[in-house]
Amino acid sequence: MTLSSLILKPQCDRRLKLGHLWIYSNEVDVERSPLRNFEAGQQVRIEASSGKCLGIALMNPAGLICARVISRDEQYPLDKSLLVHRIKQALGLRTLAFDQPYYRLVYGDSDLLPGLVVDRFGDYLVVQIASAGMERVKEQVVEALVQVLKPEGILLSNDHSARALEQLPEYVEVAYGSIPDQVELVENGTRFLAPVAGGQKTGWFYDHRVNRAQLQQYVKGKRVLDVFSYIGGWGVQAAVAGAAEVVCVDASASALEGVERNAELNGVIDRVSAIHGKAIDVLKHLIAEGERFDVVVLDPPAFIKRRKDQKAGEAAYRHINELGIRLLGRDGLLVAGSCSMHLGKDTLVDIVRAAGRHLDRHVQIIGQGGQGADHPVHPAIPETDYLKAVFARVYIP
Amino acid sequence: MTLSSLILKPQCDRRLKLGHLWIYSNEVDVERSPLRNFEAGQQVRIEASSGKCLGIALMNPAGLICARVISRDEQYPLDKSLLVHRIKQALGLRTLAFDQPYYRLVYGDSDLLPGLVVDRFGDYLVVQIASAGMERVKEQVVEALVQVLKPEGILLSNDHSARALEQLPEYVEVAYGSIPDQVELVENGTRFLAPVAGGQKTGWFYDHRVNRAQLQQYVKGKRVLDVFSYIGGWGVQAAVAGAAEVVCVDASASALEGVERNAELNGVIDRVSAIHGKAIDVLKHLIAEGERFDVVVLDPPAFIKRRKDQKAGEAAYRHINELGIRLLGRDGLLVAGSCSMHLGKDTLVDIVRAAGRHLDRHVQIIGQGGQGADHPVHPAIPETDYLKAVFARVYIP
Repeated sequence: MTLSSLILKPQCDRRLKLGHLWIYSNEVDVERSPLRNFEAGQQVRIEASSGKCLGIALMNPAGLICARVISRDEQYPLDKSLLVHRIKQALGLRTLAFDQPYYRLVYGDSDLLPGLVVDRFGDYLVVQIASAGMERVKEQVVEALVQVLKPEGILLSNDHSARALEQLPEYVEVAYGSIPDQVELVENGTRFLAPVAGGQKTGWFYDHRVNRAQLQQYVKGKRVLDVFSYIGGWGVQAAVAGAAEVVCVDASASALEGVERNAELNGVIDRVSAIHGKAIDVLKHLIAEGERFDVVVLDPPAFIKRRKDQKAGEAAYRHINELGIRLLGRDGLLVAGSCSMHLGKDTLVDIVRAAGRHLDRHVQIIGQGGQGADHPVHPAIPETDYLKAVFARVYIP
Repeated sequence: MTLSSLILKPQCDRRLKLGHLWIYSNEVDVERSPLRNFEAGQQVRIEASSGKCLGIALMNPAGLICARVISRDEQYPLDKSLLVHRIKQALGLRTLAFDQPYYRLVYGDSDLLPGLVVDRFGDYLVVQIASAGMERVKEQVVEALVQVLKPEGILLSNDHSARALEQLPEYVEVAYGSIPDQVELVENGTRFLAPVAGGQKTGWFYDHRVNRAQLQQYVKGKRVLDVFSYIGGWGVQAAVAGAAEVVCVDASASALEGVERNAELNGVIDRVSAIHGKAIDVLKHLIAEGERFDVVVLDPPAFIKRRKDQKAGEAAYRHINELGIRLLGRDGLLVAGSCSMHLGKDTLVDIVRAAGRHLDRHVQIIGQGGQGADHPVHPAIPETDYLKAVFARVYIP
């Protein structure tokens, strides 16, 4: 295979040398390799200004990130063989870290497969493709997954908004075998049924696994509030871990049906209840009613989706955390989550500090968690490190 | 009790309002309250420039940090009653987080007891006092601990260098009951004997508990190298968790005797061995011999003790991590620890990234741990957040 060359400006190979995988359009020497000469999804040879080959990348000529490195060796383009190799390497990590086959199997750039995410639910795989280059090889992706994992079914869950950046259509289709409406998974010893086709993202959020595990030691005999509960990831696990009472809050009625189903599945339905409504409204209502909880978990959707949302988003995190603290008694535990990559870890800690100070509480940060091992961080790509869970003891000193 | 007033300059109450506890000497209005009027260890009333009382602080007039807030309410000075109250609050957190009585019971500023550290080993308490104000009330500290915990013995382990900053003498003395040479503790299910009087710091480092627990899932059947092992905190726990072979490295012969004792105590002596020597020398020797490990743990002493050591210290971390990676096979796990508060979390991740890149390895950060819940972080005092453990999968892609 002879590939066209994408030539970088002088010095613009620096980021790649650090291990990064992205090439920005303003780093391309467009005199020597005009971007209009490339198609979305095309594989190209990356050349430093000196002529040295730096590897192979997947093009998206219309994007700010116009190419992503798929291989540092020009002998190995993106094909089924490379996919099998990379999927096996990804599987190696998950097999090391987990006893059971429930995890994010492939996490994009961090597994050197930019644009590809695969969540595994035992015999079922849910795939998300986010780049034109990966879309071009989607048949090979499916074949490689079949070869390595021998699944019962593979779903292409390609209906997420990131695809628009690469001019890709949104669709959901069963690409191999069959996929049930609900798949089963086990996380930290608790069973769940997740709606892979009709739910949020791939149907489940494996990323908070270690933080949910950390919560378990604090909930025995406690009254727990799980805000933005989705189908009960935090709340049902807390009940299984011995919480006396769990209240889940979500704006989606179907998510709360999931909570009920999952609570039943684990035999804790007598200790789990649900309140349907917008989080802010429900929290204010609970405060007005004089309700108090020992543990409040806040796991909101990303309040800061883009840089321009920074200020408003930080204010929203501050607001929700202050409401959460007001629902704690004299001495309680707040779990402040954020999946906004634009919100720094230290900023979230400071938001909790400020919320506590405003209410004259002393705050002790007793744990700071991130993503589980199946969402490895690529150390040269800060964007791969997005998840935060701050465990804060909050009390009247 | 009528206290003298320490008056702050205008605006200089800002940090205290954020929750911080420290007052720097350049924030004091020395016209109105000359520092020479105060004695080391004296309790003072803190006054904002406006005259508003901000609470009570412990003085160290010769220090850069010349006072630390002990109470935000002038009705409650530092006395036995406040100590009992604060120790009970500290105990509340530990009782919530731990099933067994082995933990840091009091962690200074974070428990609103600046200058006081207490480690608990079941019925024995080891106390470190680091401020003149706390030294003045050391009898009350002992009485308060006896009242709340009813221990068998209390050791004042006051031989650490930080005491010089407060012109305090170094000494070690049994302040209550009796203290054996070795005390027993249990961490993550593994038993240890720690030398409370003759060992390092209080005899044990509880701070890495959660990180040592995290290691357990990765070591079954593996060959593990524990560098800067001290008495085997990481290594012996790895053996108990099923490691096929553990090699501990330390420059202290008595520490390695501790490794042997603790391996015997847990019935894993057949899988634990020790190499005596300086870490760098031993690692180079192992590399020269062609040795390979599945897991390498690096838990060095602080390479950056002061700001001026920053550059040399970062180079030292880089060097040791590169040596560690060279001892991994094609696919292995590096655990990069640091207890330097001057080394940022992101900087340590970047050091591991750079070390991996230099050796053409792909690095995936699969976990980033900090202090356990018994070393809570005070969110307004970044210095209380010092510990890092980066779990990095390192492989040839």
